[in-house]
Amino acid sequence: MSHEITGNLGGMDLISIDDVEAAAGSIAGVAVRTPLLPCRWDGELLLKPESLQPVGSFKIRGATHAVASVPAERRSRGVVTHSSGNHGQALAYAARAAGAPCMVVIPDVAPAVKIEQVRALGATVVLVPPARRLAEAERLAAEGGLTLIPPFDHRDVIAGQGTIGLEIIADLPDVDVVLVPVGGGGLASGVATAVKALRPEAAVIGVEPEYAADARDSLAAGELVTWPVEQTYRTIADGVRTNLSELTFAHLRERLDAIVTVSEEEIRAAMSRLVRESRLVVEPSGAVATAAHLFRRDKLPPGRTVAVISGGNVDPALLVSVV
Amino acid sequence: MSHEITGNLGGMDLISIDDVEAAAGSIAGVAVRTPLLPCRWDGELLLKPESLQPVGSFKIRGATHAVASVPAERRSRGVVTHSSGNHGQALAYAARAAGAPCMVVIPDVAPAVKIEQVRALGATVVLVPPARRLAEAERLAAEGGLTLIPPFDHRDVIAGQGTIGLEIIADLPDVDVVLVPVGGGGLASGVATAVKALRPEAAVIGVEPEYAADARDSLAAGELVTWPVEQTYRTIADGVRTNLSELTFAHLRERLDAIVTVSEEEIRAAMSRLVRESRLVVEPSGAVATAAHLFRRDKLPPGRTVAVISGGNVDPALLVSVV
Repeated sequence: MSHEITGNLGGMDLISIDDVEAAAGSIAGVAVRTPLLPCRWDGELLLKPESLQPVGSFKIRGATHAVASVPAERRSRGVVTHSSGNHGQALAYAARAAGAPCMVVIPDVAPAVKIEQVRALGATVVLVPPARRLAEAERLAAEGGLTLIPPFDHRDVIAGQGTIGLEIIADLPDVDVVLVPVGGGGLASGVATAVKALRPEAAVIGVEPEYAADARDSLAAGELVTWPVEQTYRTIADGVRTNLSELTFAHLRERLDAIVTVSEEEIRAAMSRLVRESRLVVEPSGAVATAAHLFRRDKLPPGRTVAVISGGNVDPALLVSVV
Repeated sequence: MSHEITGNLGGMDLISIDDVEAAAGSIAGVAVRTPLLPCRWDGELLLKPESLQPVGSFKIRGATHAVASVPAERRSRGVVTHSSGNHGQALAYAARAAGAPCMVVIPDVAPAVKIEQVRALGATVVLVPPARRLAEAERLAAEGGLTLIPPFDHRDVIAGQGTIGLEIIADLPDVDVVLVPVGGGGLASGVATAVKALRPEAAVIGVEPEYAADARDSLAAGELVTWPVEQTYRTIADGVRTNLSELTFAHLRERLDAIVTVSEEEIRAAMSRLVRESRLVVEPSGAVATAAHLFRRDKLPPGRTVAVISGGNVDPALLVSVV
């Protein structure tokens, strides 16, 4: 579970298809086995709607496998994280399903509705000033024997997200292109691992907002490039504002074919299309892969394409504004 | 394919579980195998989201099986129907998938967008005055050798819709209650046939709007009772305004456990809940089963419950009004 240093690829040991297959066993019965949805508006495109997961995003996969991978005695002491977004809810759901205690550290400026959603899933919420989130989660882990499970910088989390890739290949063995959003990079790392192992000839393409293109810059530079928060907070796609970690960068450098970027206007247009014509409620981050297919076709390989819809936790006012 | 008269149940020969199993073979690869979605807002409830089908409703199942059941030589001459709603689109989609010509008779007062949607699926649209729809479809069938496939009054259509019941039992073998909308009764007839054959102890409950409760009245009277269109057009749930036929009535009388009704306000509240908390875009008819679980719990058996979300083809303005 720790990041083993092997000298491979600049010191990072990448996860393997075996790790993803093991995760598939962990998540069965907790995560929904989402179908591929054909689009009547585009015969080449299929959607993988992770917005339909019980907590509204793919994060349930990584969280569930990470919880399952903690040895039972240690798991009984509990798990902790410092994400108040989709990962925090996913970890709370996964811990409850496994019968493990869960603490979620949330900044005291967070909206009450987010705090209530985590509590409703049975987790204990710890409110701290924003700057103290990580330190508090680490303190709880060290002093209480809880296992810290971060949102993406973790081998088991990446392996769990990779199960999406397994399912895509099982349902569409001759897929040509897989489009996947890139935030912290856990989803893209896992999906690329599975798809490239099972169908090397398929292209796995990451998609970022133009306003949060740190992964594009990192791959171009050959080293981790981070964007300041003042830049990334310009995008409405809040789920993909995060920078890569060294671990996810190592996976993407090895396994991703390319990155394309999309504009804010294109993200909104893709949300509208998904709501109106595919009957899916999606969050902005969940629409970026579809936006790439709609508006960056010249930068993508041709053929049967799967767009991963990463999540659907959207503010109702924003939803109304795009419909 | 024709309604055989056997003297059984007042002259109606009901479809069997074997008919539904045969339909499952027909629809594989055309209809989406929809998952059961747990609800974080209700641990007892799972949703069967037929809104995710390529044409946005369960109708693709019955249409696909009915087209597949026409002998190949006759099928090559084409199929025809007189529904401009979900069944018309479903038949166009199913015929295209089977490589068969399709004609859809639509009243000349229909919105242009509906006509365009059917044409975009490759069907030929025939516009007639509203009162001449059925006669025109019958004329096309008789003169052109096309096979008329009505929206629900047809054994193969009922068997196709029944595949939803097969999938529910496969995914949740210990289900206690299945809630299914009742319009013309094809969906409820098929689902009840499958569920009662495979798990007789489960209750299959039909749900109607209070403003279109002809099935409730028919079951109470022991004979087909029809409601005038001035009554049924009061409900926003346009997909379930239709009266039963003798064929669907015979199925429901034998296989349905009960009918409950829901109000217009309750239908809207259920739509809002499904959009906001389950991230599904649903049409009013698609929300009636969920409304029954939310607001008629006192009239339903307890236990693990599946609500069939029949479709998601909702007017954007109505969608916005419930979010």
